[in-house]
Amino acid sequence: MAATRRGARTRQQIVEEAARLFNTHGFAGTSVNQVLDATGVAKGALYNHFASKEALALAAFDHAVAPLRTMVDQALGGDAPPEDRILAMLEGVRQIAHHRALPGGCPLTNTAAEADDAFPELRAKAIDLVRAWRTRLAGVLAEVASCGRYLLPAPPEELAGVMISMLQGAGLIAQLLGDASAVDDAVAFLHDRLEDCRITPA
Amino acid sequence: MAATRRGARTRQQIVEEAARLFNTHGFAGTSVNQVLDATGVAKGALYNHFASKEALALAAFDHAVAPLRTMVDQALGGDAPPEDRILAMLEGVRQIAHHRALPGGCPLTNTAAEADDAFPELRAKAIDLVRAWRTRLAGVLAEVASCGRYLLPAPPEELAGVMISMLQGAGLIAQLLGDASAVDDAVAFLHDRLEDCRITPA
Repeated sequence: MAATRRGARTRQQIVEEAARLFNTHGFAGTSVNQVLDATGVAKGALYNHFASKEALALAAFDHAVAPLRTMVDQALGGDAPPEDRILAMLEGVRQIAHHRALPGGCPLTNTAAEADDAFPELRAKAIDLVRAWRTRLAGVLAEVASCGRYLLPAPPEELAGVMISMLQGAGLIAQLLGDASAVDDAVAFLHDRLEDCRITPA
Repeated sequence: MAATRRGARTRQQIVEEAARLFNTHGFAGTSVNQVLDATGVAKGALYNHFASKEALALAAFDHAVAPLRTMVDQALGGDAPPEDRILAMLEGVRQIAHHRALPGGCPLTNTAAEADDAFPELRAKAIDLVRAWRTRLAGVLAEVASCGRYLLPAPPEELAGVMISMLQGAGLIAQLLGDASAVDDAVAFLHDRLEDCRITPA
């Protein structure tokens, strides 16, 4: 039992350190030895938890995007009015951009930028995440469109796609400028446009 | 004279190959030796043109973003009606996304993603490019706002920022998905929204 707990703790420590290193230096730029050095874990112990650098990178990616995934689930789920769930998601994106859990910027951006070098399974994971986010957001936008209080300018699926593009691009520019105000601007803009789409007075 | 021409040709060949390598593997992931191997140029000849790997990376970045810079200048310049110049820029972004001159995706995205590892001068160049694009676009949007045919939903500077975020993010998602349709969608969306802002019938 104690050994299992210790094993789980070691695994978690490896994943956290790997996420930090992969997010900063990329998949190609990070070696298993660097993870070993940073954690002080023995090579055998690491390979006990992860069969390969690839398996470790996949677990590290899941760890890195967990805040985004959890935020999207929580913000867009529940039974608040759909427009409030959209606004909660926008605020969640803003919070993530202002309080990055990992050095190196957005793990989705970094994975996309390295897509040529990274291995296909990692890219597939990032693609799944973007598609799941878009589908989820489109579903809530469809609720907004059908609730009778809003007239949206485009179909929910299209709106979800361009909203995610805008938020992701704002995150990229924030990462480049070292200043999250591009994300604040995108969130405020989308918030205001949603208000503009209201048919009945607030 | 012949030696000068040969020198210029060698320099150009080095820059093109370096742009290809840096854009695919990043600044940290590319060595001067790889550039030498890929070009077949002697080390002394390369250092004759570029004092350092840093100097080479700056020239390679300029080469990599030249299509974007030229497109923005041409589309937003001239004396066509300002709304047509915006539409020309949107179409230009779409063309660049569909016909990437370099492997490895968008050089701006790649530089932003590597910002932690890259050296400050490279990051500064990418920042300058984004700011110049935004300022230029905001200027043309100000013309649209004041021409009497459109009622824009936000100030030109803010609109320019969110438009560039959306286009850049769409490029990122296109790069991740290996499919430029996210850029087509963003361009079509912005085109339609501009039409929505028309006060007088087309």
